[in-house]
Amino acid sequence: MNTLPLENRIILVTGASGGLGRAAALALAKAGATTVLLARKIPRLENLYDEIVDQGGPTPALYPLDLAGASETDYAEMAERVVASLGGLHGIFHAAAELGALRPFRDVEPGGWQRLIHVNLTAPVFLTQSFLPALQSSGGGHIVFVDDTATGEGKAFWGAYGVAKAGLRSFARSLDLEMSAFGIRACCFAPGPIRSGIRLRAYPGERPDLLDLPESRANEIVQLFASHSSHNTHL
Amino acid sequence: MNTLPLENRIILVTGASGGLGRAAALALAKAGATTVLLARKIPRLENLYDEIVDQGGPTPALYPLDLAGASETDYAEMAERVVASLGGLHGIFHAAAELGALRPFRDVEPGGWQRLIHVNLTAPVFLTQSFLPALQSSGGGHIVFVDDTATGEGKAFWGAYGVAKAGLRSFARSLDLEMSAFGIRACCFAPGPIRSGIRLRAYPGERPDLLDLPESRANEIVQLFASHSSHNTHL
Repeated sequence: MNTLPLENRIILVTGASGGLGRAAALALAKAGATTVLLARKIPRLENLYDEIVDQGGPTPALYPLDLAGASETDYAEMAERVVASLGGLHGIFHAAAELGALRPFRDVEPGGWQRLIHVNLTAPVFLTQSFLPALQSSGGGHIVFVDDTATGEGKAFWGAYGVAKAGLRSFARSLDLEMSAFGIRACCFAPGPIRSGIRLRAYPGERPDLLDLPESRANEIVQLFASHSSHNTHL
Repeated sequence: MNTLPLENRIILVTGASGGLGRAAALALAKAGATTVLLARKIPRLENLYDEIVDQGGPTPALYPLDLAGASETDYAEMAERVVASLGGLHGIFHAAAELGALRPFRDVEPGGWQRLIHVNLTAPVFLTQSFLPALQSSGGGHIVFVDDTATGEGKAFWGAYGVAKAGLRSFARSLDLEMSAFGIRACCFAPGPIRSGIRLRAYPGERPDLLDLPESRANEIVQLFASHSSHNTHL
């Protein structure tokens, strides 16, 4: 009997009820991982829980949290609870994201800007920091930030969302360089155009039925977590 | 008699008492610009004022402000005062920056991270926003953010400073695309290794006497503000 590629791996998925987060959670569970599902909306988390259990995956843990109002205290508590109840962590898939509204920067309110920097940059950065000791004592793991190539290297009207993605790319590279000697790898994953809430808001003139479903990226996402981090050390 | 390249131009320099900001302020004034000098430390601003007046430049305006504690209210007040006393603005040179300490991200305190994101990213972004109406009604202008190629596309231990620079690059490009039709151009200027406080802190093993002085970048900086924005419109 074949072992599943992610058997006995524990992976946290943020934004788990959104298009890509949900697809990732289902795929990771199907590949054997025990998932920790973080999202704001409890009913949607419960639906996802049922889907994972129905497909025969390991029982997931649900973690309802609104990243917009979360801080390092919340992340520390989360890390403590995950370690206490599941014994460790081997990966994080950061799918939580908020687009805001595409608009000229001159009309952007500072409060809205700061909310988007928080949700798209500060929260994933410090949520990751809280789990570094757990990842290290679990023998290493993978941290994957979802990137959005639509933001390019700075395009008109993408505002704080675009700036946050640029910051995440820089952060992922520096974290990877700092932590790979400890078996912790960090990278960005850009799914490209998919039928997600963010894509449909950003490109309202696109036909949704012509876009790939988030599920089409499932194998790629599983592969990101299935590689053995000890093979990748380059420091 | 030759006209100076920046005669009758009003240019705000942040971080004006630091190595590059000071060199920029002196060079811009020598090229004929009236400078608005923003920095935290009043005595250093006063010294710079004297230097500019001694070299025969237009009388500068001093604006003591600590960007670490500043918000959109302060920037709005600054824009109002600059317009009221000088009649407009044609450019901003964002030299204010704070490195923090190079260290592993796992040891970074969230408060320190957020301070660096504020000073190096949020403050220049919203200070710029406050001056967009003044720049537009002055017939356009140039917004220059100082970049640091030492941060690469994400290097180990550069933390929030590196993330903020990546964000600024993205922001400068998007702002330029959004505003060039209005005669407002935005770009990043990377001075490369120079004998500045940030360089010496980041590379304590380098011999300062072998580094270029900030003054060696003076001509380049003047050129950034001397080009006619109406010639550059590409939208």
